[in-house]
Amino acid sequence: MTHFAELLTPEQVESIHETSLEILKNVGMLVHNQEARQRFVEHGCQEDAGTEIIKFPNKVIEHFLQSIPPTFTFHGRDPKYDRTIPGDGPLLVTGSSAPDIIDLETGEIRRSRSDDIARIAYLVNELLGYDIFSISVIADDAPPDQFSLSRFYPALKNCLKPIRGSAPNMHEVDNILKLGALIAGSEAAFWERPFITFQYCSLISPLTMDVESTEKLMRLTERGIPSYGVVAPNAGVSSPLTLVGTLALANAEFLAQATLEQMSRPGKAIIYEPLPTVADMRTGAYAPGAIETGVLAMGCTQMARYYNIPCGGFVGLTNAKTNDAQSGYETGMSTVSAVLAGADLLNMGGLLDALMVFDFSKAVIDNEIALMLKQVARGLRFSQENLALDVIAEAGPGGIFLNKAHTARQMRTAALLPEIADRSVRGQWEAENKPDSQAKAMRRVNEILRRDNPVLFSPDVDNRIQAEFKGLVAGDAIAVK
Amino acid sequence: MTHFAELLTPEQVESIHETSLEILKNVGMLVHNQEARQRFVEHGCQEDAGTEIIKFPNKVIEHFLQSIPPTFTFHGRDPKYDRTIPGDGPLLVTGSSAPDIIDLETGEIRRSRSDDIARIAYLVNELLGYDIFSISVIADDAPPDQFSLSRFYPALKNCLKPIRGSAPNMHEVDNILKLGALIAGSEAAFWERPFITFQYCSLISPLTMDVESTEKLMRLTERGIPSYGVVAPNAGVSSPLTLVGTLALANAEFLAQATLEQMSRPGKAIIYEPLPTVADMRTGAYAPGAIETGVLAMGCTQMARYYNIPCGGFVGLTNAKTNDAQSGYETGMSTVSAVLAGADLLNMGGLLDALMVFDFSKAVIDNEIALMLKQVARGLRFSQENLALDVIAEAGPGGIFLNKAHTARQMRTAALLPEIADRSVRGQWEAENKPDSQAKAMRRVNEILRRDNPVLFSPDVDNRIQAEFKGLVAGDAIAVK
Repeated sequence: MTHFAELLTPEQVESIHETSLEILKNVGMLVHNQEARQRFVEHGCQEDAGTEIIKFPNKVIEHFLQSIPPTFTFHGRDPKYDRTIPGDGPLLVTGSSAPDIIDLETGEIRRSRSDDIARIAYLVNELLGYDIFSISVIADDAPPDQFSLSRFYPALKNCLKPIRGSAPNMHEVDNILKLGALIAGSEAAFWERPFITFQYCSLISPLTMDVESTEKLMRLTERGIPSYGVVAPNAGVSSPLTLVGTLALANAEFLAQATLEQMSRPGKAIIYEPLPTVADMRTGAYAPGAIETGVLAMGCTQMARYYNIPCGGFVGLTNAKTNDAQSGYETGMSTVSAVLAGADLLNMGGLLDALMVFDFSKAVIDNEIALMLKQVARGLRFSQENLALDVIAEAGPGGIFLNKAHTARQMRTAALLPEIADRSVRGQWEAENKPDSQAKAMRRVNEILRRDNPVLFSPDVDNRIQAEFKGLVAGDAIAVK
Repeated sequence: MTHFAELLTPEQVESIHETSLEILKNVGMLVHNQEARQRFVEHGCQEDAGTEIIKFPNKVIEHFLQSIPPTFTFHGRDPKYDRTIPGDGPLLVTGSSAPDIIDLETGEIRRSRSDDIARIAYLVNELLGYDIFSISVIADDAPPDQFSLSRFYPALKNCLKPIRGSAPNMHEVDNILKLGALIAGSEAAFWERPFITFQYCSLISPLTMDVESTEKLMRLTERGIPSYGVVAPNAGVSSPLTLVGTLALANAEFLAQATLEQMSRPGKAIIYEPLPTVADMRTGAYAPGAIETGVLAMGCTQMARYYNIPCGGFVGLTNAKTNDAQSGYETGMSTVSAVLAGADLLNMGGLLDALMVFDFSKAVIDNEIALMLKQVARGLRFSQENLALDVIAEAGPGGIFLNKAHTARQMRTAALLPEIADRSVRGQWEAENKPDSQAKAMRRVNEILRRDNPVLFSPDVDNRIQAEFKGLVAGDAIAVK
């Protein structure tokens, strides 16, 4: 792409930046974590006595913005899946942490489990559109004290791509890092290419940092553990009911969080990860599927580009309960907006019902959308050779192109050859029992999950892991019959 | 929007323009219509003896490009629906001329009829997302010699928005213009605000103009009848299997057509209307639903903007046979691409199965997509007031926005309030029998088509029309029970 779509003029971008600074200077952040308040004050912020409110002089923000690196790297268990943004983007990522799943065998909704995560991980490993596996569901069968291990273990065991997830506290983070070291062979080997990235939500809109997750932000950051946080104001509920007001607030929250990160470890790589939404004011419903999520993502992307920080949030999520037209247009439209605005990463795949439910067939359909998004980013592939003037002359007016050598050479690469989209003639489609996207995607899910997964750990490594973490879940993707 | 997405640098745009000129100068157009060949030659082109091939010196193209106006106006039967592009865009338009329809009562596919057109016209009249009704289907019940009348009459009778359609020959065009005059009250009244626009396909890719439709192009243009033509190369079949090669060819074909139009009537307003596609090379299937249609539309839009000509083609069509996820993401993704590239008009609504089938519920779903596209084009609505710094200060850190006067004021306008997208909680959705987009859209179709249509002609006008055109179809939208 030679020029991204911009909804704001350079002056408007400046104005939003300045409004965010105003918010942080005059309204401030409510910081419940005492150590964080102390850290803010030590680095030049003011605390309003007795209120836990921190106010930020402009120069503090401006100073700490400067140490944020312009790139972020994800490592995969297999280095061929390493990705650095910008450059390798747009990276397509699964949606995270749904509590429920549509059961693969029964089609019924239920709580998700660790064996679901194993299957999803293997599916994501095999689907070319996804660059990163953000652990899509919760493990309801996790043993006590192994809430996060029961998610990361099946994820890492069944997928060679970068794994991203969250953990409620540093004890669980440390267990996951121990798991990483066991997989890599040693701590040193893990830290050479740390293939685990953490995400946290330390911020509660409007303008509030809580105790525990802010603690986690500081510890993860101090130790240089790959990690970054999300900012998610909901217009009408936790931010003003205007798009630019919500953008200014989200941006202020990002700046406060980024400042604390850079105070904790200057030069720590992060991602500007927003999820601003607009509530449906008829009912108060959470509406991440709304087109405004895409429009806001375009605004955030423009802010991140202004700061020269890699950008990528949750965009392309849907409110649909099933794989109907809504699930297609909600995921498709907002993601195209974000990609054409220059977003480096999109958390978009596999979830239905406003992040509540994972669905295997939705993940396959979204993989196709992911591949389509990469085609959009690839653009027209201009070159003198691709202009093909000689082929046009060879065919001549009224001529044909099907039989040209040039056509044969371009056959596999000129366009995406989709697996889900139906392009058959109606008679053929009827003869095949009128499969819709859902049916075709489910067929593909079963095709993949019927195979043996070759990416598992060696028995040796697996034994060491099971010895270290007694009672750990099996973590295997049970083959579909 | 302050900057459109651009896939090409200014130099690459120049290069495509020059490649198109090269094609027209050295490869030329095969022009079967003798009068058109003569007109080209009279205005400075050369005819290759005995081949019907016309070659275009660069200066001829450059000269005639200059008289194309930068705007195009559509008139509605009711002036409140008048639209001029650019300015009023993006205009959302129904897809055209499908032979088949999914029967509203039986759900079965069958040939479409004039009473279907009447119902579709009224539906489009009531759906806020559509700006123009391009007559979506054929009238299989047309009496002899009234093929086009049987389409335009029910369309005009049931819809106050601008009507666009095609007619096979000038005899039928004249009948439709007579119909227009009867509706307007007089010929003069019609020509003051001509609420009918014609579209033609005079060009067959690659680089061929046929006899009859080129004749029609010349007559429509000479007489200043609102009209424009479509250019539709299919990469791999009728153009090179590269995106920029197909873009250069489509652009050359547009330039040849536009040149003939300007030779026929300098200053005639037109639209740069492309439909370049890429064939699915696994089967040769026609694939307008492919994401490459969106990418090519972005390229065409950039060329049209370079020439300063209003631009709008067929984009957002789908290959899906039913209202599944594919129908949603195919229509949604390509249209967002085109809108963010600056397209002024999109023919996108109501058709399934690669332009073969009209579906009422698809039209309603696409209306919601149309409204979403307008939100994308509307952008962030930046203003100092919308930045809402005072409201953010009023709520304060940890505060709430739901109870603010500002929130109440923005309630209806901050975001689109969709009718089809489901945002309910799962329990409620299950209690309502799990409606998908298709079910909700069909409910909306029935809701609208159960009402009496108040936009019909007066009995007086209708009597005059029926007297003029003996045996004309009834043209009424039969109410749904």
